Parts: sequence; C-alpha cells; structure tokens
Amino acid sequence: MTIELYCFGESGNAYKAALALQLSGLDWTPIKVDFFGGETRGADYRTQINNMGEVPVMVDGDLRLSQSGVIQDYISEKTGKFAGASPEERREVLRWVLWDNHKLSSNAGMTRFLMNFLPEEKRPQEVITFMQGRLKSAYAVLDAHLAGREWIVGDALSNADLSCCGYLYYPEPFGFVRSDWPHVDAWLNRLSEVPGWKPPYELMPGSPADRAAT
Amino acid sequence: MTIELYCFGESGNAYKAALALQLSGLDWTPIKVDFFGGETRGADYRTQINNMGEVPVMVDGDLRLSQSGVIQDYISEKTGKFAGASPEERREVLRWVLWDNHKLSSNAGMTRFLMNFLPEEKRPQEVITFMQGRLKSAYAVLDAHLAGREWIVGDALSNADLSCCGYLYYPEPFGFVRSDWPHVDAWLNRLSEVPGWKPPYELMPGSPADRAAT
Repeated sequence: MTIELYCFGESGNAYKAALALQLSGLDWTPIKVDFFGGETRGADYRTQINNMGEVPVMVDGDLRLSQSGVIQDYISEKTGKFAGASPEERREVLRWVLWDNHKLSSNAGMTRFLMNFLPEEKRPQEVITFMQGRLKSAYAVLDAHLAGREWIVGDALSNADLSCCGYLYYPEPFGFVRSDWPHVDAWLNRLSEVPGWKPPYELMPGSPADRAAT
Repeated sequence: MTIELYCFGESGNAYKAALALQLSGLDWTPIKVDFFGGETRGADYRTQINNMGEVPVMVDGDLRLSQSGVIQDYISEKTGKFAGASPEERREVLRWVLWDNHKLSSNAGMTRFLMNFLPEEKRPQEVITFMQGRLKSAYAVLDAHLAGREWIVGDALSNADLSCCGYLYYPEPFGFVRSDWPHVDAWLNRLSEVPGWKPPYELMPGSPADRAAT
C-alpha cells in the first residue's frame, strides 16, 4: 500500500518527512494540503486530520501519524534506516532532532514565513531581526559540530540530518547564508548527493511557490 | 551511584528532566549551573559539558546526556516509567514531546526570559507581543486536547506531561494565565498532586529567583 503524506511544498517540517520517505525507498505519494487557503486552520482538518493543525501527517493503511520526528521514527522502525547504529547513536539522533525542533527548524520556518509569505506591510521587522540573531547561534552550533564530520551522528545519514536540513535548501531568503557556514554548506552538498534526493518543491509539488519558480 | 543533573532553577527545560528524575524514584542530585553568570556560554562548558551550550545535562556514571527529551527517554528506559503503554502510546508521547519543543516550551521559555530576566529597557516589546500570540495558539491546542482527559497520552502520567508542563508552574509572568485554560489548569493541579512532585525552585534550589522568593 502506498503511504500518503499530507504536506505542501513550502513546509520544511513536511520536507523532513517527505525526504525520509523518499530516501528510505518506501512507496509514498504527497497529498497537497492547501495551507495558504486556510485548510489546516479549519475545523475539518483539526478534527479529522490533525488536532495540532499542522502538516505533515502520514497515513499508512489504518495508521495516521503527525509530527515529522514521529514519522521519521516510524520510517526507521519499518526500514531499519536512519536511526543510528547503537543505543548511544539512537540517543544522539534524538538529541539533534529535539534541538532542531527547539532551536533551528522552528525559528527558521517562522522567520522564513514572516519574510516571504506575509504581505510586506505586515512583516514584523523587530521579530524578524530578533529571530535571525537567535538563528545565527543555532547555525554556529551546527557548523561547529559538523567540522570534521560527514554526518551529524556517527558515520551515516540519520534522522538528525533529515531533521536539521528541513529549511536549509529553500530558495527564499530568511537570513541563512550558506557560504557563511562552510561545514553546514559541505554537509548540505553531501546530503543532496544521496541517490534519490530532491529539493522541497520537487518532492512536494503544486504549491504557489513551486509554480512561481517554474 | 547518584545521578547528577546540571541545571538551574529558572530553566523549565531543566525542570522537565529534574521532575522526571524526581517522580521516577531514581537517586539524583541537582548540580547548579551559573547561567546568569555566563557559565553555559563559556568555552569550558561547551567543550566539556555540552556543545549546544544548554542545560539540562545528566551524568550517570560514564554516561552524559543532554536535551530534556533525551534524558526523559533514558529515565524511561532505566525504570520502565513514563514512556506510554504500547507502541501507539510511545509514538503519541514522542509527538507531544516534539510539539512541546517546537511550539510550547521553546516559546514560553524565551518569552519568560525576555519579560523577566532582561533589564526593563532591553525588553523587545514587539517580540514579546508576537510570541504571546503564538503561545495562545499552543495553549488552545493543549487545552482542547486535555478536555475529558486526565493525562496527555493514554491514562497515565508520561513524558508528554513532564515535557509540556516545563514552564507552566513558574511564578514569573509571561502571558500564561492558568484560569483562562481550565483543562490545562486541572491537569497542572492533577500533576502537582503526584507523590514527590515539587515546583521548579524547590527541585533545583540556589538560583537568584529562588533567593528572591524566600
């Protein structure tokens, strides 16, 4: 049975789940959610799809899961991939997935939204500047960690990489300048060379930004 | 051997780990980190204790772990407690822990810091107002979920509860008004009645706010 992923191209959180599905080799298909039309804010979505009002949501037969980290964990259970090679590595993967949720993707996603998907007159400049400062500390932590390493945990691609990269391939500006962070830059290149890798708008097509790009 | 937890009273993220240790029945002791004196920002702390420059950090013999969610996961492994009663519940616990890191504790911790631990003239009012708005959406999600439930997942206390409550017992104002969210309020009362429960400044004593409160 084909796994369905409720998602939309602009969501880096959805991309984390989509990329894990894609690189795992599982059979999956994206189901476009009309986020910008308000679908995730409606009562139907909240009661029938996700009470957190968010994407991604994965449906595999009778099983429905939300939160990209939970979906990644499920893919690892099902395929044995991306979870770390030992109990120590498994904990280290979880550590970076949690850190990403707390310090990196959460703030990057919000800042990118404010800077690109709000009308110009509604963009809260003080918030954007503040969040960009917080994000610089996060990029510095990741860059220092990746010095001398190929992957975030151990010597293989894991959910730590698939989580932290969530917002870092997008074309829209949000204050992340790849060339400022050489170890992050090299790691993003490395990850994009894994067979099957695709950028967000190719993995989750049909969004306004996707149409604008083509 | 006594488990050591590097922490300080003001940190709700440290409280999540401290409360899990406390309610698990494990033998543990808090080790005060001088956050306000800059200890977590120093090179020694980053190289020797935690490269993320954060608390909490747990030391159990040779094992050193950081991120409250990883420490909670370890406590569950060691004691069999708080992890959920089935694979479905385990995933649901992880879902709420991730959501908390993304939407609740991260933003609550930052907003509380900006409103209480920065000098008044340095408080970025636009950021505070914006984050309070985001937090209201998070309180609403949690409150709706807790309607008709005793605990966040299944019918027992789990790491989902021990994560989401991280910042909600503090006395300092940050825009969370307990009486506005009756299901959250009842759940916080319920959790505070679990034998062994203590509020943050009692579990992790010795901080400036603790001294100010006595």
